[in-house]
Amino acid sequence: MPSTNLTFPNRAAHRTWLASQAALPAGFRVGTARFDFMPREAPKPAKMSLTLIALDRPTADFAAVFTQNAFPGAPVIVGRSRLGEPTLGAILVNNKISNVCAPGGVAASERVCTETARLLGLTPREVLPCSTGVIGWTLPVDAMVAALPAAVAALASGSILPAAEGIVTTDLYPKIRRADLAGGGSIVGIAKGAGMIEPNLATMLVYLFTDVALPRDLLRAMLARAVGPTFNSISIDSDTSTSDTVALVSSTRVPCGDLAAFEAALMTVCRDLAEDVVRNGEGVRHVIRVVVTGAADAAQARALGKAIVNAPLFKCAVAGNDPNVGRLVQAIGKHVGAQAPGTDLSRLTVRMGGNEIFANGVFQLNPEKEAALVAHLRGAELYASAPPKDGVFTAAVDYPPHERCVEIEVALGAGGSAATVFGGDLTHEYVSENADYRS
Amino acid sequence: MPSTNLTFPNRAAHRTWLASQAALPAGFRVGTARFDFMPREAPKPAKMSLTLIALDRPTADFAAVFTQNAFPGAPVIVGRSRLGEPTLGAILVNNKISNVCAPGGVAASERVCTETARLLGLTPREVLPCSTGVIGWTLPVDAMVAALPAAVAALASGSILPAAEGIVTTDLYPKIRRADLAGGGSIVGIAKGAGMIEPNLATMLVYLFTDVALPRDLLRAMLARAVGPTFNSISIDSDTSTSDTVALVSSTRVPCGDLAAFEAALMTVCRDLAEDVVRNGEGVRHVIRVVVTGAADAAQARALGKAIVNAPLFKCAVAGNDPNVGRLVQAIGKHVGAQAPGTDLSRLTVRMGGNEIFANGVFQLNPEKEAALVAHLRGAELYASAPPKDGVFTAAVDYPPHERCVEIEVALGAGGSAATVFGGDLTHEYVSENADYRS
Repeated sequence: MPSTNLTFPNRAAHRTWLASQAALPAGFRVGTARFDFMPREAPKPAKMSLTLIALDRPTADFAAVFTQNAFPGAPVIVGRSRLGEPTLGAILVNNKISNVCAPGGVAASERVCTETARLLGLTPREVLPCSTGVIGWTLPVDAMVAALPAAVAALASGSILPAAEGIVTTDLYPKIRRADLAGGGSIVGIAKGAGMIEPNLATMLVYLFTDVALPRDLLRAMLARAVGPTFNSISIDSDTSTSDTVALVSSTRVPCGDLAAFEAALMTVCRDLAEDVVRNGEGVRHVIRVVVTGAADAAQARALGKAIVNAPLFKCAVAGNDPNVGRLVQAIGKHVGAQAPGTDLSRLTVRMGGNEIFANGVFQLNPEKEAALVAHLRGAELYASAPPKDGVFTAAVDYPPHERCVEIEVALGAGGSAATVFGGDLTHEYVSENADYRS
Repeated sequence: MPSTNLTFPNRAAHRTWLASQAALPAGFRVGTARFDFMPREAPKPAKMSLTLIALDRPTADFAAVFTQNAFPGAPVIVGRSRLGEPTLGAILVNNKISNVCAPGGVAASERVCTETARLLGLTPREVLPCSTGVIGWTLPVDAMVAALPAAVAALASGSILPAAEGIVTTDLYPKIRRADLAGGGSIVGIAKGAGMIEPNLATMLVYLFTDVALPRDLLRAMLARAVGPTFNSISIDSDTSTSDTVALVSSTRVPCGDLAAFEAALMTVCRDLAEDVVRNGEGVRHVIRVVVTGAADAAQARALGKAIVNAPLFKCAVAGNDPNVGRLVQAIGKHVGAQAPGTDLSRLTVRMGGNEIFANGVFQLNPEKEAALVAHLRGAELYASAPPKDGVFTAAVDYPPHERCVEIEVALGAGGSAATVFGGDLTHEYVSENADYRS
């Protein structure tokens, strides 16, 4: 759970909304278990949750993409090899320790898979292991094995909510998104991720489940197409996790009536989950949406949007409701100067909250526009800017609050491609949460 | 002046030390003036300092390098053209407004140069203009012209301290470094810069003055060589200013007896000033020194070092004296995964404070090492980690405190090249200072 004290005015409404998203597609069951253990590398005890998602019968039709960090976690190494297996029967996720470059990490992951398989009547290679949490510590394998029977005993169909709650670390709230297909069947997805988020070809932990029957090659092609404009278009802090994983699993219960509708629904679920990850990002009090248009290609547009949402000075200014748009243009200039020097920026226009702030090579500023920009930033705030005296923040909006963003439009006038990128501000809460994450 | 309340236990000793560095080389005079004005784009008054550095007689021998940001300030545009002029007679620096992409910005800079030249008996193109401060606002030219006679009247030889104090914005203290050459003559340098600091081929505002006579081509070649391992090897926040300028000016009074000694002295002054800029970086409470060895080339080594000092999660952990070395290795893996996938990292070793934390592909951690790492971080702290109850931070060390760093060694085992990079932690003070910089 996060170390900042955030409360929502309408947590009950949020729970009701989550429940409305949580129905499991046919063929899946979820069970969790929680226990205390003593990390080998640290002097005090910690808590871990195990989250088990089991298929009623193993499926050949599953897809996954993983982090491009050069130090992938042991579960990522194991997971990549699972893509070559004929069937998948279960996914086991633990939080608290990510099992990255820890001594004996792959063997530890495999042992947990073996025990899970034994309890479920599967082969070990039918189990996909995933871990998230502190990098560098070793998995408490014995304690995990001891807790596994409780997770198996808890397996139930119906709701994915226990899994959405089980996989979190610093997340502010569980994240569930679904799409129900007109032709029958559904897609439901859950996500974990709040910091170390600038995915590179994949992201954090995301699990997408469907009962719609589609062959694995098609699922894998669709997932590869979906991650670019969704999970690869967000950044909370420019850091790329060593555990990023997105998995898509079909229980093959419902024939697919409309391929295009399925892919569109998959894209929507991915986009909503990606935005959820930003909205509950560590310390995020303003979500920043950057729409870049007129680019030579989509990759250029996305890279420029990322440069803006990753510029620390601009992020701090947004946190303070300070429309310091000079820092925004600085970020564009830094990116172009370093990555594409010589690019023609003479047709660049920049808007914030609909107000033109830069055109024809110069800023378009005056005290009235400044006031309008401050109002836009204040209106986009998710929580109060300064901690109230009792130390408890109260959210200004109910959840899921998809309506509030700092809106930035960057028109390059240099081509026909576009991209939308989501990021957040840089706040005291981010620093507090990360200056002593492990304590 | 910075918005955080920092005091030093021995400010008098720091002033004494600064004075010991401050003697101006022969042939230069310094004068400053300070005044109030009303910015056109903002609703409340502001203060500006003018800093004038004049040569007793114009010199042909000067060098300058400028920002690679694609939106250079008007003074940078003007300054680049000055490099083609036969002589330089004066440098005029203003703080508070950087004159970047403001309407009529180049004309404003030129008008200030014209008025400065008139007062000094120079031609306008013998004056190098420099501006630093808020991006996007327009220069108060009339107010600057009205204040110029006071700066001219204040011109005095002897000490560069008034200039070092005049050019600052959010700097914690003025920065002066010097080298006295055995063969006669000296180099003295001043620097401004505390945020928006990840220089790209040049940096912030740095002025280096010497009385040693060297032709301009040689000065320019030496300056180009000096900025790589010094100003281009630091990052406070990964942002690249639109105003970065480093100028080197000779008054040609003293013959150069030893070229190599001069270049070595120039490198030392640049390295010390670069480190000063990090040590007084916005909110910096730990300086992080990363030494990368065994790289294929120096550019790779420097880029990897930058990736480490720019990783927000690692910077936050350092701020909290939390040796979360998983985030350090994450930063290495992110950089290699994105920039050089396929690089062999099997021989990588990483040390912090002399303690081996990663070798043979796995972390080397235990509770005793954790305690040693915490002690190293605490010992490298410049100020108390948490604000005392009266809101005033007290520095733990006197100035100039060049001895305290978080020491990180990254040995790649892949080649013979190395680089040293300096950066800082990410603290509440950085967020506070930048969430409402303009107020």
